[in-house]
Amino acid sequence: MKRVKATTRVQRPTVEEMGLNAGKRTRLKRLLYHFGPGNGTLLFLPVDQGLEHGPRDFFANPESLDPDYELRLARDGGYSGIVFQIGIAEKHLGTFAGDVPLVLKLNGKTDIPPDKSPLSPLLASVEDAVRLGADAIGYTLYVGSPIQEADFVQFRGVRQEAERLGMPVIVWAYPRGEAIEARGGRDGLYAVDYAARVSVELGADVVKLNVPKLDREKAKASPKPYNDLDMSEEDAIAKVIRSAGRAMVLFSGGEKVSDDELLKKARSTMAAGATGLIFGRNIWQRPHADAVSITRQMKEIMQEFMA
Amino acid sequence: MKRVKATTRVQRPTVEEMGLNAGKRTRLKRLLYHFGPGNGTLLFLPVDQGLEHGPRDFFANPESLDPDYELRLARDGGYSGIVFQIGIAEKHLGTFAGDVPLVLKLNGKTDIPPDKSPLSPLLASVEDAVRLGADAIGYTLYVGSPIQEADFVQFRGVRQEAERLGMPVIVWAYPRGEAIEARGGRDGLYAVDYAARVSVELGADVVKLNVPKLDREKAKASPKPYNDLDMSEEDAIAKVIRSAGRAMVLFSGGEKVSDDELLKKARSTMAAGATGLIFGRNIWQRPHADAVSITRQMKEIMQEFMA
Amino acid sequence: MKRVKATTRVQRPTVEEMGLNAGKRTRLKRLLYHFGPGNGTLLFLPVDQGLEHGPRDFFANPESLDPDYELRLARDGGYSGIVFQIGIAEKHLGTFAGDVPLVLKLNGKTDIPPDKSPLSPLLASVEDAVRLGADAIGYTLYVGSPIQEADFVQFRGVRQEAERLGMPVIVWAYPRGEAIEARGGRDGLYAVDYAARVSVELGADVVKLNVPKLDREKAKASPKPYNDLDMSEEDAIAKVIRSAGRAMVLFSGGEKVSDDELLKKARSTMAAGATGLIFGRNIWQRPHADAVSITRQMKEIMQEFMA
Amino acid sequence: MKRVKATTRVQRPTVEEMGLNAGKRTRLKRLLYHFGPGNGTLLFLPVDQGLEHGPRDFFANPESLDPDYELRLARDGGYSGIVFQIGIAEKHLGTFAGDVPLVLKLNGKTDIPPDKSPLSPLLASVEDAVRLGADAIGYTLYVGSPIQEADFVQFRGVRQEAERLGMPVIVWAYPRGEAIEARGGRDGLYAVDYAARVSVELGADVVKLNVPKLDREKAKASPKPYNDLDMSEEDAIAKVIRSAGRAMVLFSGGEKVSDDELLKKARSTMAAGATGLIFGRNIWQRPHADAVSITRQMKEIMQEFMA
Amino acid sequence: MKRVKATTRVQRPTVEEMGLNAGKRTRLKRLLYHFGPGNGTLLFLPVDQGLEHGPRDFFANPESLDPDYELRLARDGGYSGIVFQIGIAEKHLGTFAGDVPLVLKLNGKTDIPPDKSPLSPLLASVEDAVRLGADAIGYTLYVGSPIQEADFVQFRGVRQEAERLGMPVIVWAYPRGEAIEARGGRDGLYAVDYAARVSVELGADVVKLNVPKLDREKAKASPKPYNDLDMSEEDAIAKVIRSAGRAMVLFSGGEKVSDDELLKKARSTMAAGATGLIFGRNIWQRPHADAVSITRQMKEIMQEFMA
Repeated sequence: MKRVKATTRVQRPTVEEMGLNAGKRTRLKRLLYHFGPGNGTLLFLPVDQGLEHGPRDFFANPESLDPDYELRLARDGGYSGIVFQIGIAEKHLGTFAGDVPLVLKLNGKTDIPPDKSPLSPLLASVEDAVRLGADAIGYTLYVGSPIQEADFVQFRGVRQEAERLGMPVIVWAYPRGEAIEARGGRDGLYAVDYAARVSVELGADVVKLNVPKLDREKAKASPKPYNDLDMSEEDAIAKVIRSAGRAMVLFSGGEKVSDDELLKKARSTMAAGATGLIFGRNIWQRPHADAVSITRQMKEIMQEFMA
Repeated sequence: MKRVKATTRVQRPTVEEMGLNAGKRTRLKRLLYHFGPGNGTLLFLPVDQGLEHGPRDFFANPESLDPDYELRLARDGGYSGIVFQIGIAEKHLGTFAGDVPLVLKLNGKTDIPPDKSPLSPLLASVEDAVRLGADAIGYTLYVGSPIQEADFVQFRGVRQEAERLGMPVIVWAYPRGEAIEARGGRDGLYAVDYAARVSVELGADVVKLNVPKLDREKAKASPKPYNDLDMSEEDAIAKVIRSAGRAMVLFSGGEKVSDDELLKKARSTMAAGATGLIFGRNIWQRPHADAVSITRQMKEIMQEFMA
Repeated sequence: MKRVKATTRVQRPTVEEMGLNAGKRTRLKRLLYHFGPGNGTLLFLPVDQGLEHGPRDFFANPESLDPDYELRLARDGGYSGIVFQIGIAEKHLGTFAGDVPLVLKLNGKTDIPPDKSPLSPLLASVEDAVRLGADAIGYTLYVGSPIQEADFVQFRGVRQEAERLGMPVIVWAYPRGEAIEARGGRDGLYAVDYAARVSVELGADVVKLNVPKLDREKAKASPKPYNDLDMSEEDAIAKVIRSAGRAMVLFSGGEKVSDDELLKKARSTMAAGATGLIFGRNIWQRPHADAVSITRQMKEIMQEFMA
Repeated sequence: MKRVKATTRVQRPTVEEMGLNAGKRTRLKRLLYHFGPGNGTLLFLPVDQGLEHGPRDFFANPESLDPDYELRLARDGGYSGIVFQIGIAEKHLGTFAGDVPLVLKLNGKTDIPPDKSPLSPLLASVEDAVRLGADAIGYTLYVGSPIQEADFVQFRGVRQEAERLGMPVIVWAYPRGEAIEARGGRDGLYAVDYAARVSVELGADVVKLNVPKLDREKAKASPKPYNDLDMSEEDAIAKVIRSAGRAMVLFSGGEKVSDDELLKKARSTMAAGATGLIFGRNIWQRPHADAVSITRQMKEIMQEFMA
Repeated sequence: MKRVKATTRVQRPTVEEMGLNAGKRTRLKRLLYHFGPGNGTLLFLPVDQGLEHGPRDFFANPESLDPDYELRLARDGGYSGIVFQIGIAEKHLGTFAGDVPLVLKLNGKTDIPPDKSPLSPLLASVEDAVRLGADAIGYTLYVGSPIQEADFVQFRGVRQEAERLGMPVIVWAYPRGEAIEARGGRDGLYAVDYAARVSVELGADVVKLNVPKLDREKAKASPKPYNDLDMSEEDAIAKVIRSAGRAMVLFSGGEKVSDDELLKKARSTMAAGATGLIFGRNIWQRPHADAVSITRQMKEIMQEFMA
């Protein structure tokens, strides 16, 4: 078994070295330095689960069904931005406009039809995002899907429009499909690492990844050398950040976990070189005071990792 | 079994908080306050069954085959608007123009080909609706259909054109497809609740829903927590209205039922927080005098629920 | 068995009540009053069988292979118009232009590939029709086809262009597909009645239908109440005309039949309320003199039914 | 001198005979029957003087500087609609949307540069009007201006877009230019009569005219037979209404006059066959209560002239 | 002489009542509350004099020739934004992007050709502004210019694109031309008051005005009632703010004056109801420390006028 040790924590990409045009640079720097932790890191509150999973995610905290609840959280907690689909953004930004930066998620789908050939269709355009005053757009890319081609082509259009209008592109990079499952699974290092690199190759400015799960048994099905790596979780996180290169990396929180686990994940990913966190259910499934309090603790951790 | 009690009736969204542009606001307020009950509620007469089901629906009342019959009903009953497909609107609005507001249904299909992968193709554009002087457009969205992606993309185009031209968007939100049937069926709370949220996420201003049917046996196949909820019908209605958020909710009448059942449905849905009703066959399958009389009774009920 | 009696012959729609713009009205009135019978009825000579069936249809009368033959017939017989595909129209209208009104058929196909999912692709545009001086366009719609969606979308484009350019739209409404066969067949009352209504819902100004065939055994497979109707042929014809509403109805002749049968069909459909006839092979498979003679007899019948 | 007597009051054009498409008909009927006097006449409140004359017109009643003042007047007085330029409409329609119909004036200018070759440039499009939910658009046409050509061409674009989108066109028909002055002046019967006809020739649905001033001395410079007509004012008014044909005629109020003169003008123009009145300064230069009171008196007069 | 007294300071328009779409609202609120004084007022640093006047304006402080000098000033002084033409913005925003909001001036000209018919041509588009991440665009409108028509038409295009992309529109409203000079001059109350109203009528969200100069002698040439008004400077300032209605008003500094005069102007305009100040030469013609110091004093004054 190959023992791989990441010698140093990965250096976060700086806005200056990312080769961004003026608009992307302006908007990204605003998110990095004028909202959220304000030290060059990013903390986003994603609220697209109502579409992706349905209202079932809101039962844990019935107040969370109302997007104003999350907007208040984002404002009171001081997030870098909130992530909405077009319909919610249009109807709820209202008086929060200007105070809570918007990341408009451009594509999305329900989890109802079978998931064998996932493709998340475009529900809005970059121009919609501009009209709403958004500071970035989000796009879900299913790396490895049997209809990955359609996804790549759809993304090309988004990237080009985003380039023209100076809008930073955040890619939700999700390995999916039978072939992925056959090579160690969607959360294996092989899959996440590949998805990270695909995203930056295709033009992401920021990539949202899941923390890779190190399951040696499942990893045996991965292509070389992933089938035979001996890596700590911290090194695996650093590895996928490194694969994302000059795209900034965000890690997601996934399903709700305990406070300790949450803060541990925040620290370990930031320590490895992540630029930020994007935690949804772990935040808004809590009551307001509790959510603001855990946010404060997360931000304290993030302050240690000034970019 | 989880006993869930909706503590209060849902607050109807107001036009002011819906984030609408001037044209949408003007047209929607005209429907809410200058036609129909006139107290901020909506009462629509849908006449798209000739396309969706074929002429068989008109046998119960042969006069109803002539769209002028429904136009007279809408005028004499004082409806907020009538729903037509493009061909009927073009040929029949005639002297009723200006007296009966038009909701132009933009997509539609027959019920002849197999319904496994339903998609309702566009038969008209928002610009057609503007040219006809319509005050809103209607769109049927099949949530959960295996070709949901194509539906979402088609809807995006409609939403953007409607935004550009200031035209309110009414979504007929219909859960459909094998996966829906496998999770409790198209009328289950899970399905209707999800469809409500999908509609507002994608940009509906008004959503037409069916009253959810509470069948504990079928619901066991639904995802958590829907598989184990103990909810009254009223609370279930309030739940789906709440999931629609800042989109106004209309409930449909479905097949013809008795007067008592009809009025009971009108009362229970309005009491739960619906903004309006969209009853077709239950109205125009009756003779004119009878239809106008039941309409009067429905409107008396609606008067109790000033928005 | 439900005995249904149409109490009166259906009233033909008048041009005035059809809601047509000036161009459509001008062209349609020219066809109704300045050519053909000239009393507000329509008599068309369709010549699209060379594409739809191939040259085999012309063997019965070899002269008919030359479109000039049909043009002479149309002129000498005094037809309301002749129906051609674009290539024939371009090459043959020549000196007949102005004397024989043209209906340009916009879509068409061969009968060579399997017919399970029929769709008739566009071969010409409404603008082609304008350029050729046509007075109407024709479109074949396969109601019930498994790919009905694509057909509906294609037709939307035609309807919108025809509206913009003031060109009357004649729909060849053909029920087709497995699902239609499973519900009583393409010529059953259920199928023809539905096709009539679909056409007017989608925006036809004139609909070409086949006379429904009353086969009680096959009709049992139709949806209610069609599975249990006891109707005379005349009443069935009146029924489908009524379902077409404010679209004028033409009946087709189909394969060649005897003189008596032909004239009987002309009389019975006109008596039931049809606006006109569209007979092809029954006319041009005859020698010129014979064809002109039977045309004269048909027109005498049509004179009895001044619209 | 030729004595010309109009034998009867002119018949107002009906919406039905105006050849309007469905959208124009819907919007115009709404203005005629659902707002304002409601009997088929029109009463508009124009508020474009802030642009055309500058704020000096608001000194007489300082409150009138705030467009909300005029909106309240239009609502409380029950006007058929209010006339605004785009900037005022965007910022003030607000909560009045749906309650006070909007006529969006599409062109406009200041009175600062010399007026020898007047042309009022387009400040907004018909699509802007649709987006704002307007029920008609307004256009100032300078008949006789040395650069009349540019005006006609500019109007053609407006007319075509209005036709496509079903928006009624109201033309402010103003005779202007040296050549007009040389033929009896801008208010002479020759000039107003010609302007009325030009407007309908070019495609106006409604024309705003000034009451012609009968000055025999000045009229001598008019072309035959205007140089030698002996006509009462009532007949002159009837004459220009007749020249406007199937365009409805509105008369303007001009500078503020006494109550008696105002009501006399309302009666005489309506009696002659005008469809409505468009009085601005005469209304909003009064305090609210006074303005609502005179409006009530005007509407009582208009009630005598049901169209 | 008419003594006119403005009874109260004008109420600043709030973002909420301005009828802005989400993008305009977001960007404007960012300028009002997240940069500059941060209390709902605006303080801009304009740097377009290099084009409008040429490099002569930079001699007073040679450092000011380098746009980085003004960018540092804007950042260190905490301005709401800096105003640049496209070329300077492209080349200098660099590392300041995100820290100093950009107002992209879309049109501009030199002062070399004779100024009789001024028109400031478009040098960039709203889309350029979006691409650069600007938060507003600027447009110079020459009210009263003999070629005012071309200016109005050009502005329409800008307004429509800004509406579509959600970009606030700041109008530099400059009375100009012979006719203006003949009516009291470009700085007379008549001229400035008219320019304020024209800007809001045409669709400005923010208007930059010069403080009107009260010269009774020159004012005699103004139209009534401006020719005979007795108004204090404060009341005159309040008057033009009131004429701008729901457009926010900025006052310019003009040529460099003494510290006292500058601060007095800041106080008097803010006290009268201005939303902000736009002082260029008065700031950047000073050395850095001096400029930052005077800016601090200005902002202290602005803090007294929380909007």
